[in-house]
Amino acid sequence: MEKCRIIFSGSGGQGIITSAIILAEAATLHESLNAVQSQAYGPEARGGSSRSDVIISDKEIRYPKVIEPNILVCLTQAAYNEFASLIRPGGILLTDKFFVKHEKKVDARLVELDMHREVLKEIGRPIVFNICMLGAFIAITKLVKESSIMKVLEKRIPHGFLDMNKNALELGITMAPDLEL
Amino acid sequence: MEKCRIIFSGSGGQGIITSAIILAEAATLHESLNAVQSQAYGPEARGGSSRSDVIISDKEIRYPKVIEPNILVCLTQAAYNEFASLIRPGGILLTDKFFVKHEKKVDARLVELDMHREVLKEIGRPIVFNICMLGAFIAITKLVKESSIMKVLEKRIPHGFLDMNKNALELGITMAPDLEL
Repeated sequence: MEKCRIIFSGSGGQGIITSAIILAEAATLHESLNAVQSQAYGPEARGGSSRSDVIISDKEIRYPKVIEPNILVCLTQAAYNEFASLIRPGGILLTDKFFVKHEKKVDARLVELDMHREVLKEIGRPIVFNICMLGAFIAITKLVKESSIMKVLEKRIPHGFLDMNKNALELGITMAPDLEL
Repeated sequence: MEKCRIIFSGSGGQGIITSAIILAEAATLHESLNAVQSQAYGPEARGGSSRSDVIISDKEIRYPKVIEPNILVCLTQAAYNEFASLIRPGGILLTDKFFVKHEKKVDARLVELDMHREVLKEIGRPIVFNICMLGAFIAITKLVKESSIMKVLEKRIPHGFLDMNKNALELGITMAPDLEL
């Protein structure tokens, strides 16, 4: 496999870091891949945009920071404005339709999904927005299997909330287009 | 300030990653410092030891991985066995007395605290062991203020659990020796 460099970005309360950790754990604990997951906090963290990096590879990962992501997820306009220019030419840019307007010229395959609104409509709890995004993410990228994400969720999520998270994950999976990679 | 490189290590369920994220957020959101926080998952993650790195500095941080920590926290014997040799000469090694026996010759200042047992005795809920450790950590290192950690906890922890976390933080602070740094 090619090394995959990912940035999840958005605002503080959207569960960006949690998504990144769940993805990294799914890849390493359940698919025999290597992963590095990191957050850099600088002056911009105090401003608002939150960013979390994941690198996944079947080989050893030497440098843990993502410079040019193959896949960039932006869940707020501020995050899009700040990070869209980083994307590796030909990469995938996944955004939420409710939060982000595409205003820049970006050399990437755009996937714009109405995840926030669908989560509110179908599940009614915005807290699982990040899990819906993760569902769309794995369906688009085919990086890890749904069952690997579920195994991580089963270990992390209190029993009473597991079904809600599973529904959000599946909602994201059904929303994702089938890109040829 | 000198750049401070930290490794928290232990086993999966001990809240290692959460502690690292709380520390990084406290430093950046409430003390105007910069921080990078990361997890590397490789074959060893499947074995058992969990490790989370934090670098804190008042300057820009270029390389996000910790090679030689100034401060190493080990909460299991396996983590101690794996990581103790990494410590920067003269650094601080904080361990839990119940989980870790010092068996190696390490050029570091050893701080061995009975955090696990005290948390069980005083609070009765092992889930806040990581917060007690964080209390001891900030009291020993003086890296961030208690109030900065509390601000992060207030945002992250559901209201009904905040007092328990505050008590655990303060328990850790009272247990810490006053090292001359």
